[in-house]
Amino acid sequence: MKVELISVGTEILLGNIVNTNAAYLAEQVAKAGLTCYYQTVVGDNHDRLAETIKTALGRADVVIMTGGLGPTDDDLTKETAAEVMGMKLVEHEESKQALIDFFKVRNLELSENNWKQALVPEGGRALPNPNGTAPGIIMEKEGKHVILLPGPPIELKPMFEKYVFPYLNALEPGVILSQTVKICNIGESKAEMMVKDLIDEQTNPTIATYAKTGEVHIRVTAKADDEASAKRLLKPMVKELKKRFGTNIYSTDEECTLEKAVADLLCAKELTLATVESCTGGMLGARLVSVPGVSEVYKAGYITYSNKAKRRLVDVKKATLDKYGAVSEQVAKEMVKGAANLTKADVTVSITGIAGPDGGTVEKPVGLVYIACDVCGKVTVRKNQFKGGRQKIRESATSAALSLMRQCILEYYSEVTFGEKK
Amino acid sequence: MKVELISVGTEILLGNIVNTNAAYLAEQVAKAGLTCYYQTVVGDNHDRLAETIKTALGRADVVIMTGGLGPTDDDLTKETAAEVMGMKLVEHEESKQALIDFFKVRNLELSENNWKQALVPEGGRALPNPNGTAPGIIMEKEGKHVILLPGPPIELKPMFEKYVFPYLNALEPGVILSQTVKICNIGESKAEMMVKDLIDEQTNPTIATYAKTGEVHIRVTAKADDEASAKRLLKPMVKELKKRFGTNIYSTDEECTLEKAVADLLCAKELTLATVESCTGGMLGARLVSVPGVSEVYKAGYITYSNKAKRRLVDVKKATLDKYGAVSEQVAKEMVKGAANLTKADVTVSITGIAGPDGGTVEKPVGLVYIACDVCGKVTVRKNQFKGGRQKIRESATSAALSLMRQCILEYYSEVTFGEKK
Repeated sequence: MKVELISVGTEILLGNIVNTNAAYLAEQVAKAGLTCYYQTVVGDNHDRLAETIKTALGRADVVIMTGGLGPTDDDLTKETAAEVMGMKLVEHEESKQALIDFFKVRNLELSENNWKQALVPEGGRALPNPNGTAPGIIMEKEGKHVILLPGPPIELKPMFEKYVFPYLNALEPGVILSQTVKICNIGESKAEMMVKDLIDEQTNPTIATYAKTGEVHIRVTAKADDEASAKRLLKPMVKELKKRFGTNIYSTDEECTLEKAVADLLCAKELTLATVESCTGGMLGARLVSVPGVSEVYKAGYITYSNKAKRRLVDVKKATLDKYGAVSEQVAKEMVKGAANLTKADVTVSITGIAGPDGGTVEKPVGLVYIACDVCGKVTVRKNQFKGGRQKIRESATSAALSLMRQCILEYYSEVTFGEKK
Repeated sequence: MKVELISVGTEILLGNIVNTNAAYLAEQVAKAGLTCYYQTVVGDNHDRLAETIKTALGRADVVIMTGGLGPTDDDLTKETAAEVMGMKLVEHEESKQALIDFFKVRNLELSENNWKQALVPEGGRALPNPNGTAPGIIMEKEGKHVILLPGPPIELKPMFEKYVFPYLNALEPGVILSQTVKICNIGESKAEMMVKDLIDEQTNPTIATYAKTGEVHIRVTAKADDEASAKRLLKPMVKELKKRFGTNIYSTDEECTLEKAVADLLCAKELTLATVESCTGGMLGARLVSVPGVSEVYKAGYITYSNKAKRRLVDVKKATLDKYGAVSEQVAKEMVKGAANLTKADVTVSITGIAGPDGGTVEKPVGLVYIACDVCGKVTVRKNQFKGGRQKIRESATSAALSLMRQCILEYYSEVTFGEKK
């Protein structure tokens, strides 16, 4: 079954906003096992909108439109889509009441314009929108489906998940299930090589690799008559990937990020944490704090961008800085030891590098980053050479620090448990 | 003159990547004074690609395509576009040599596939690509223009700026010039109200407001026969905006970010800086360190997410935490005073707030953030109530901290200079 996406809005045509909704919907459509050949962006103009909807309906079974459901005269998506589908707009009692409640709760005044948001195509279905004033719409006629969703992602996403995904799932016979195997500590090309035979032989489930900054995701997708059968198809492939990538897999959970995996590991092992950042300037701390509840373990973070800060805040020796330079294995080590001594944290990590654009030399080029990790006194230092601009290098360094922390903690515990070294 | 954008790539159709190229190109096309009514995304499929190009050429004068210029058999953009335009592909000596050089410099092996990247439509123009192997292409026939650009933004953007923007500019008679007035410390709706009369009366130059996190940008665009005349049109409008927004304008420079404006101000006044972050967890430090050269002034940063860290790292009193709670004016003040005492920085800023999703109460709801700024001993605390999810609240808090720093420094100096209070 074919789906087309139409994003409506002058702000996308003018480049004022990036069309993240299209990426989100495209991913969801693929997840539902449907095929999408075209995405179109068009402005709030009746004729162009009508033409675009007609073209899309000529090529696809389902057309998903976003934006243009607001209360103003410029918002034409619902009116135009209903017209093309040959459906009349009628007042929808529940949507009207939801509108009244929405404004009442927020102590706002409902303007005359807003009433048009309570109109629904006759025979169509209104999708409640607890986060805004525009209900979504599903219309169906002669095997063609048109789905209208509000533009703001905070309104669109919950509505899509609750109503539209199940609707799409029901259109396509069978069940599509995906599982993402998330890998760190291994580069994209190496990861691809490690699964090349699986990709070459793939039928059902299919597998695909996606490169993220400092991570590789492998998505395994199975199609079957029912959920249990799809799960049975996924299982051996995920097992095979686990065998190949071992502890480099940090999660197989769709929602889990690398920082969450690290925070969870710290919490599970009851390990406290400290960070010392130079070129990343707080990025690592910010990513860790994006995980709610990390305050339980995150004892302290230092941003020591200047040499003086490295000396004063975490006791790096002047002699070490003079002899080896701020971007060196020795300084990374002293940073991590200094912060570990000060905070008594179980796990401490330090980052020092050259993010550019200036400051690179032949011996120490832009992108050179040392990361040190101390787990209960055992220090590991890793030298990295990252590519890209200043921002990309800093993001790569942050991801690499999370990967290194995870690896060092796991190694420490495997030695403690199995090797009884400590 | 009308332009259409076609993005080619299965990875966009599957939602694996967000189509940031389309946003970039749309903005540039608007800047060049051209009109764009449609953007389309299509996969690497000959028939659908050919149909899409034909449709676009039927509606527009210029079609800009991105992606699908790689060396593999899947990459069909150039072949299909040349076919639709009725132009034969011929070997292009300079592109061939550039390809050889590209691989030689990188010590990589040139595969047979790569040679097709040296083919150019007869009568077309090849655009050099110093950052990759695919040259761009400009084709023109009977008043219709097709421009092909490589997909990776790092290759596309420099090529667009150097070759395509001047080409588009020459197509449209006259000159379009824009200037962006960047405002902080004022909300979007207030800023819009302050320029409503200008927007209502606009002809040439036009003005438009854009909301960013914690900022508002007003873009003034003038169209004239030559650059000098366009500049003459821009000048009085920018002057009027400067009169209305005063020191809340942090820059009128296209490249300048709020963090750069703050870093430049610190450097210009020779003021050193320290940061203490709770809920933002290093975001403020990370944004400041994104400005190259900030190490000159950035003395130290503390990430004190837990109450213990607030006490141990920056000497917040236990009694204050117990009495007022971590998210309070009093704790924000003690954080900033503690860090200022420890670092002897001229400017110190602290952030403490509730980013959610949990931890909110009726008195202290999610989104409540206190920001304190100490400039040479003078402390200002601002209470903020931000909306959105955890990430959005933290981003808003970071922007608000930058705005507050800027404002406090300017006020301090205006008092020193004009009021002679100090």
